[in-house]
Amino acid sequence: MISKEFKEQLKAIVGTDNVDDSNSGRTVYSYDATPKFQALPDIVVAPRNVDEVAAVVRLCNETKIPIVARGSGTNLCGDTCPLQGGVVLLFKHLNQILEIDKENLTITVQPGVITKEICDAVEKIDLFYPPDPSSMKISTIGGNISENSGGLRGLKYGVTGDYVMGLQVVLPNGEIIRTGGKLTKDVAGYDLTSLFVGSEGTLGIITEATLKLIPKPEAKKTILALYQVIEAAGQTVSSIIANKMIPTTLEFLDKSTLNAVEDFAKIGLPTDVEAILLIEQDGPEEIVERDIKRISEICRQQQAIDVQVAASNEEAEKLTTARRAALSALARLKPTTILEDATVPRSEIATMVKAIADIAKKYNVKISTFGHAGDGNLHPTCLTDVRNEEEMERVEDAFAEIFEKALKLGGTITGEHGVGIMKAPYLEWKLGKAGIDVMKGIKQAIDPNNIMNPGKLFAEKTRERMANIQ
Amino acid sequence: MISKEFKEQLKAIVGTDNVDDSNSGRTVYSYDATPKFQALPDIVVAPRNVDEVAAVVRLCNETKIPIVARGSGTNLCGDTCPLQGGVVLLFKHLNQILEIDKENLTITVQPGVITKEICDAVEKIDLFYPPDPSSMKISTIGGNISENSGGLRGLKYGVTGDYVMGLQVVLPNGEIIRTGGKLTKDVAGYDLTSLFVGSEGTLGIITEATLKLIPKPEAKKTILALYQVIEAAGQTVSSIIANKMIPTTLEFLDKSTLNAVEDFAKIGLPTDVEAILLIEQDGPEEIVERDIKRISEICRQQQAIDVQVAASNEEAEKLTTARRAALSALARLKPTTILEDATVPRSEIATMVKAIADIAKKYNVKISTFGHAGDGNLHPTCLTDVRNEEEMERVEDAFAEIFEKALKLGGTITGEHGVGIMKAPYLEWKLGKAGIDVMKGIKQAIDPNNIMNPGKLFAEKTRERMANIQ
Repeated sequence: MISKEFKEQLKAIVGTDNVDDSNSGRTVYSYDATPKFQALPDIVVAPRNVDEVAAVVRLCNETKIPIVARGSGTNLCGDTCPLQGGVVLLFKHLNQILEIDKENLTITVQPGVITKEICDAVEKIDLFYPPDPSSMKISTIGGNISENSGGLRGLKYGVTGDYVMGLQVVLPNGEIIRTGGKLTKDVAGYDLTSLFVGSEGTLGIITEATLKLIPKPEAKKTILALYQVIEAAGQTVSSIIANKMIPTTLEFLDKSTLNAVEDFAKIGLPTDVEAILLIEQDGPEEIVERDIKRISEICRQQQAIDVQVAASNEEAEKLTTARRAALSALARLKPTTILEDATVPRSEIATMVKAIADIAKKYNVKISTFGHAGDGNLHPTCLTDVRNEEEMERVEDAFAEIFEKALKLGGTITGEHGVGIMKAPYLEWKLGKAGIDVMKGIKQAIDPNNIMNPGKLFAEKTRERMANIQ
Repeated sequence: MISKEFKEQLKAIVGTDNVDDSNSGRTVYSYDATPKFQALPDIVVAPRNVDEVAAVVRLCNETKIPIVARGSGTNLCGDTCPLQGGVVLLFKHLNQILEIDKENLTITVQPGVITKEICDAVEKIDLFYPPDPSSMKISTIGGNISENSGGLRGLKYGVTGDYVMGLQVVLPNGEIIRTGGKLTKDVAGYDLTSLFVGSEGTLGIITEATLKLIPKPEAKKTILALYQVIEAAGQTVSSIIANKMIPTTLEFLDKSTLNAVEDFAKIGLPTDVEAILLIEQDGPEEIVERDIKRISEICRQQQAIDVQVAASNEEAEKLTTARRAALSALARLKPTTILEDATVPRSEIATMVKAIADIAKKYNVKISTFGHAGDGNLHPTCLTDVRNEEEMERVEDAFAEIFEKALKLGGTITGEHGVGIMKAPYLEWKLGKAGIDVMKGIKQAIDPNNIMNPGKLFAEKTRERMANIQ
C-alpha cells in the first residue's frame, strides 16, 4: 500500500490529471495479454517528460515502491502485470517521433510510439524499419525494445535489438543516461544498449530510442507452399537456407491454425492441407523474381503439393495480415489461449514440430502450432480454459516438456516473448545457476532496491526438470 | 610478485611446458601493438582446454592474481599490456575451428583461431564471415570478440559483435557458462553475449564462440574516386547513403596516407590528389553493376576529378590489401605511430576531417587521416617519437581535442579499437559519471576481486576536458 503522502508527491510531479488510483483505473492495468496473471497496482501515473519520469523513479527508489513501465501491454510473458503492486507508469504523453535523419538513416522516438506508426512514417520516404512483431498495430516501441521483440521479417532482418543504436534511460536511482548514438560503431565501454534491450523493465525506464533504418526494399513477392506431410514443410525450411537463400519471411502454419485463421479472416486459405509455409522475399526486383523461382522449386522438391504465388501486393498483404492474426483467430475458439515461443536451431524445426505434436497427444491437450519457422521460432499455442484446473496442470506439464525438448535440441525457452513471470521458473534450465547468478549480480548492481518490475525474470523457485524426454 | 607455490600450482594445471616465467618469455608479452605501454607479467601460461582455463582462473581468483587473456596482441588500446603483472594467458592450444554448420549457417571456433582462417574456411564452401579488421591476417577471433572489432566491410555488414551468436565463457569465479547458441532469436534473460563482446577481457575469458555466417556474395566490384577537395570526399559519403545505397566498403585516405601506402605497396595509387575514396559493392552481379554505376555518378557530381573502376578482382584485392596496410605503411615513417578511432555520425564526416586537419595545425603535429568513412569511423594517425616529451604532450592535447570534437558532433571516443588503458581517461566524457557507475557496478558484480585485466576501461583519473572547441 502506498501512503497518502506518496500520492501527493506523485501529483506534485506529474499533475493531478496524470495520477489515477481509482478502482477502475487500477483494474485496467492489473493484467496484460498474458493469461493467468493479475495483480492490482496501487496507482497509475503518466509522466509528461523525461524529467518527470526521473522524479517519479527517484521517489519510488527512496520509498522502495515497485514501478512497472507499460506500453500497450501486449507482451505474452506477464511482464506488465504489477505483481507486487506499486506504480504502473504509462507513456501516453511520451508518444512522439522526434526526428527522422535521412543522412544517417536513423529515427529517434519516444517509447510510447506505436510500432506501426514508425514503419509507416519511414516507408513514406522510402526507408524501412524491419522489425514487425505481430502486435505492431497496437504495441509500442518501448515495449518492443524492453522485450527485444521479433517478428515476421526476422529471418532476413533480425529483431528489434538489431535496430536499436542508442537509448536514453532513467536508471533506478533517477539518473538519466544515454547509451550509443547515431553511430554504426561504438565500443566505449560495455554494451549498455544491448543490456537494456530485452531487460523487461527490470533495469531502468527507456525514455528515448534512436533506431537504425535501412533503404526500403524495391520489390517483394509472396508465395504459399502447401504440404500434406508436416515434416516436409520443416525440411523445406532447412533446405532453403542450406541453398544459401535468406527469405524475408518463412512462416509455418499447421492445419488447426490454418482453419482458425481462415474462419476468422476468410481470404480463401487452403484448409484441407496439413501445413503451409508462407514465404516472402524482398529486394531488387530481378533478385526477388530469381529467388522466388528457386524457392518454389525447392518447395516442390520437398513434397509441397502446390506452390501458389500471390498475384499482387494486395493479395500478399492479405496473407501476411492473416498470419499476423493467428493469435486472435485461435483465441476465439476457447476461453484461454496460451501461446509459447520455444525456439530451436532452424535445422531442428522438423524434429521440433513433430515433438510438439507428440507431447500434445501424450498430455491430451490441444496445441496448434505456427510461427517463424525460418528462425526456428515456433508458437505452440494451447487452447484451454483457465478454470479447468486439472486440464491446466496437463497444459503446464506439456509446455514444460516442450521447453525441455527445445533445450535438448540446442534451443531456448523463449525466442521473442521474454521471460517475465511466465517463464521465470524455466530460466535456469537454459542458463544454469552460474548464468542466473551473473544476471542477478547485474540486477543487484543497477537496481539494489529491486524497485524495477520486481518478481520478473528471476523465479523464487525453479521448476523441476521433466524426465523421460527423448 | 607471484609465489613459488603459485607457479607450481599452475604447472600442475597446464603442465610444465605451458608455463614460462623466463625474462625473455615475459618480455615478449609485456607490450602489444599500442605505443607507450609496457609492463612485465609475472608468468605466461598456455592452458590446453577449457577446464584448464577454468582451473587457472579459479587459482588466480583465490590468490587475487591479475589475469590478462591475450590473442595476437594487435589491439590498439593497450588492452593486452599486463599493467599490474600477474598471469598472461595464451590461446595457442585453443586454436581450432570446431564445426561449420551449413544448415544453421554457423561456425564454432576456439578463441585462438586467426580471423582470416575463418574467412578462408567458410568462403571455400560459398559462405561468408563479414567482419574483417585490418589485422585479420594476424589477429585472433578471441581478440576480435573481446574488442568488438570493426573492419572494412562494416558499413554494409556490421562489426564482430553482430556475428556472435553464442559464447562459452569462464567467469572470474571459475564457473563455465554458455550464452546464446545457434539461435537467431533468444531472449532468455539479459543479453550476456553482447555484454561479453567488447568487454576487453575485464569480465571473463571467452573459450569458445559460435559465429553467424551468411551466403557469400555472388560478385563484387571496387572503384577509386579521386578528389582535390577533401570535403568533397566527405560529402560524397553522405550523399551515397542519402541516395539509399549501402556499399560494402567506403574508405577514405588523405594525401599523406596515400603517399605512405603507395611508397610501401607500390601498386600505382594516385599520389597527387588530396584524398581518395575506395568503394566496394558486393551482391548479385546485376545489382553490383547498377550500384557501382550510380555511385560513380554521385562521386562525379560531388567533384571527384576521376573515378576508376578496378579492372579485375585481383586489382580490387590489391587496392583493399594496400588500404589494410595503411598502419604498417605509416609506421615506417617515424619511430612512433599513434592511431586513433574517433567516430562520428556519418553525416559529420566532412566536418570531422576538416576539424582534424585544423587541430593538427593548431598543435603543430603531423596527423594523417584515413578510415572507414561510411561508418563515420576515422583513423587520425599521428607520426611522432615517444622519446620527444615536448612533442608527445602536444600530440596528447591534439587527440584530446579530436575526441572532444567527435563527442560534440554526436560521436564517440572509440569506434572499433576499445578503451583499454589508452582511452580510459576519456571514457567519462562519453558516458558521464552515471554511465561509468553502471559499468563499474557490472564489473564489481561479475569480478569482485578485480582479477580480470585490471586497470583497463576505468581510469583512476578522468582527463580534464579541453576548452574553446568550436
